[in-house]
Order: sequence, then structure tokens, then C-alpha cells
Amino acid sequence: MGETYVHGYHRRENERLEDQAGTLVELLHSDTVYPDGSLVLEVGCGVGAQTVTLARRSPNARFVSVDVSADSVAEARRSATEAGLTNVGFQAADVFALPFTTASFDHVFVCFVLEHVSGPAEALASLDRLLKPGGTITVIEGDHGSAYFHPDSAAAHAAIRSQIALQLEAGGNALIGRQLYPLMIDAGFDVVRVNPRMVYVDSSRPDLVDGFTRKTFTAMIEGVRDSAIAAGLIEPERFDAGVHDLFRTTESDGVFCYTFFKGVGEKMHT
Amino acid sequence: MGETYVHGYHRRENERLEDQAGTLVELLHSDTVYPDGSLVLEVGCGVGAQTVTLARRSPNARFVSVDVSADSVAEARRSATEAGLTNVGFQAADVFALPFTTASFDHVFVCFVLEHVSGPAEALASLDRLLKPGGTITVIEGDHGSAYFHPDSAAAHAAIRSQIALQLEAGGNALIGRQLYPLMIDAGFDVVRVNPRMVYVDSSRPDLVDGFTRKTFTAMIEGVRDSAIAAGLIEPERFDAGVHDLFRTTESDGVFCYTFFKGVGEKMHT
Repeated sequence: MGETYVHGYHRRENERLEDQAGTLVELLHSDTVYPDGSLVLEVGCGVGAQTVTLARRSPNARFVSVDVSADSVAEARRSATEAGLTNVGFQAADVFALPFTTASFDHVFVCFVLEHVSGPAEALASLDRLLKPGGTITVIEGDHGSAYFHPDSAAAHAAIRSQIALQLEAGGNALIGRQLYPLMIDAGFDVVRVNPRMVYVDSSRPDLVDGFTRKTFTAMIEGVRDSAIAAGLIEPERFDAGVHDLFRTTESDGVFCYTFFKGVGEKMHT
Repeated sequence: MGETYVHGYHRRENERLEDQAGTLVELLHSDTVYPDGSLVLEVGCGVGAQTVTLARRSPNARFVSVDVSADSVAEARRSATEAGLTNVGFQAADVFALPFTTASFDHVFVCFVLEHVSGPAEALASLDRLLKPGGTITVIEGDHGSAYFHPDSAAAHAAIRSQIALQLEAGGNALIGRQLYPLMIDAGFDVVRVNPRMVYVDSSRPDLVDGFTRKTFTAMIEGVRDSAIAAGLIEPERFDAGVHDLFRTTESDGVFCYTFFKGVGEKMHT
């Protein structure tokens, strides 16, 4: 893809992605099921966090899962093997240079990828070409500008903004979730339906307090501390106060809100 | 209630409230149905925008709908009569001095009220006292800090912040939606469940573009222009640019997001 993956490729990041996938599986993926016999391309499978869920939910579909990182693909392959999956093939490939012929897939699935690429509309248009007429593309992305919480905190918003700015400098867009509809229309899909998937967390939902607020969102912000400070985007004290205030929202009177966006586009043209 | 109602009491405002109620009825109220024979107190009925929906959905429950404004109550009574409702009684009353005896209602319904009162926890505690043990309270509030959109606009956020600041000066809290859970727990309810009701608007949903983004949210922000400027909260040019940018989100590539919060509390104690 050419850009640096803003979250890095460390073991702790892999654990974060697996926590994230575990907590959010139902919310994000429960309505994604592919017909028997269909061939599905998963782009940006990473370490396979979504792959196992996808392939289990559609056991009679076949998946081709690709990621630009060969190390991630190796890890994803191990996860799929451990899960006993036999309907997934993996390969390393760049979303902007996919080694497949035109109209070779029934469906395409893209999750947490477009936020990291410059030219997401071009990436979508190249995926449109790989789809057979009548096929669908499913796109899932977050939007870090959708985060708000109680108690509110200017420092926490500043820490989040530093992550958004860092991702922008790396060629990505951490606010892409809200833009899925116009992006998918621009890319040429004929029918597009976007639905928000809001994560609402208060202390009556301890699994989300731990699995989402603490181990997914706040861990993701914490993970860019050194890069954001080195890039001069925020002062260390301000960043640390912001992370402290994000953790504060996990107390018994705290509330945390975040929204993912899921778009499904249909390709009617040839 | 003692505070000034930040949105005012003009005819245009009443039309805005009716537009709002029409567009959002399903999203906010479809799961509120009261058992036959139950007695329900609606607090802050305003001009009856929600009352007609509530009373129609539960034709064999009886409603007592109150509002601090006698003019609004008169208007609500006219609406209910025009709708042919016979299960609603209206009276003017202050939420902090309700003329009812302890434990006299099976259920209480409060929608778009707490955002306008100082001491929302005290208001909720006084409503808890009016409930019979085993009764429920339903609370619905917006949160203006939940608004985000594409194209993003600093001026639009500044205009929204001026409305939030104005409401705060009037004794209210335009960010109360995210705080419902801790507020309801503080007020003494024994079991509280809060669910967000997110309004997602893109150009594939023209009813919401017109009914929500344009005629509800942006109209509400527009409505505080003179007050916000007079209070020195924002420059006129900045405010107008912000409103322009909110309207910009109603174009074909625009997206607008807003979230209401609906909380249901159960009273188990005596």
C-alpha cells in the first residue's frame, strides 16, 4: 500500500486486534453471510481477526484472504488452521496491485483497511473491477471522530486528535467511517446502503468496558503515544492526561460511545 | 422549571418540534407500549408532539400529560382532541412541584425535558417517588455533542458549541444524552438500561435529509442565532458559516450523524 500502518505490527497490537474482533463480532459481522459456493475476496485480512469469523459463518463459501504484510498473512494462516477452517486460502498482495482477473469474485469484503490507504476511492474502484456483475462489496470502517464520552475531557479529545493527525500524515483517514456512502457511490457501486454500528458502553456492560473502551479504543490511542509526541502533534503531559481521562470513562459512572460504519454496495453493471 | 426554554415558544419552533416528532417516531418510540389499564405520567409534554404517538400506541392505558407552559398544554390538548384521543388528560405543572401523591403512577415518560432543567438528578428522584414499586421510567434525551458530519466543518462545530453554551447558561445541558445512565442510577432506579438511537443520514435517505438534518437539527441551531450572538458566544460571520456548512451536509455527497439516548429504569424499592 506504500503507507506505514499507523498502529504498527507488534505482538501487543495483534492482541489488541484479537480483543477487538472478539468483542465486536456480533455487532459488525452477524449479518454477513455468503451463499454456498460463492467465491469471496477478503482484502486486508491482517492477522485473520475477521477471517475466522467470516469463514465460520459461511462454511460453504470459499474465501481468498490477502494482506500486504507477509508476516500477517502467515499469522492469519496459523489462526485459520488452528480454527480448523478448510475454506480459506491466503496470500500476500497489495490492494492496489491485486493479482486477480477482472470479474473473478462473487463478493468482496474489506474491514479496517480503507482508513489506512491514500486513495480509498481508487482502491474501491479496483475492487469493483474484480467483482462479477450482481456481486456485492461489504466495507466496514471506524471513525475516531465519533468518539465521545462522560466525563467529557478536552485532553482526551486532544489525544484522539493527535492519533487522527498521525494517521493523516501516514496517508490514511481516521474519519473515514462517515464518508463510506459518498466513497462507495464515487467508486461506481450502483446501490449502496450504509448502516452505523454504534458501540455504547456504560458500567452495566462490563464486557464492553473492558473489551472495547479499555482494550480496544484506549489501547489504540495509547499505542501511538511515542509517534504522536515525536511528530510534535501533542505534548507528553497532555497526551497522558487524555489517556488517563479515557480510562476514567471506564469507572462506574462513566460512558463511552464510538461508531463503526458498515456499507454494502451492489455492482449491477458489467 | 425556573429556566428559560432555550428554543423559545414561537410558532416556527412548534412546527420544528412536530417535524422532529414525525421523522423520529419509529426510531424513538416504537418500543414504548404500556399495558392495558396502566396510569402513565408524561412530564414535559410540550405541544403534544410525543403525546399523540404515545397515547395511540397504548390505547388502553391512561395518560396524564403535564407541561410547565399553560400555552403549550392548551396546544397539546387541541392536538389530542384533533387526533380523537380520549385516554389523555392534560394539566399545567412544574416538574419540580408536581401536584400528585407518592406512588400514584404505574409508569413515567420524560422526553426532551431533562436537557432543559438544572438539577436533572433531583427531577428524576422526584419522579421516582411518584412511581409505584415495580413501575418504570422512560427517559429520552438528545446529545448535541454527538453530531458529526461530512464534509466536516470547524465553523459548524463552533455554531453547535454556541448552542451548547447557551443552553448551559440557561441552566440546561445539551450533552445530557450520554449521561443518562449515571443520572438514572444516581436518582435511585434499581435497574437501568440505556440504548442509543442513532440517526444516520445520507442522500439515500431523503426523508431524513429533509426531516432531520435540515428541519430538525440545523433549524434548531439556526433558532439560537440571535441569542448566541447577543450572549457573545460566537461572531455572526462564524455562526452563519457554520449553519451554511450544516446545510452543506444535505447535498448528495453529505452525511449527518446524531444520537438520541433512551433509558428505561425500573423501581424495585418502595
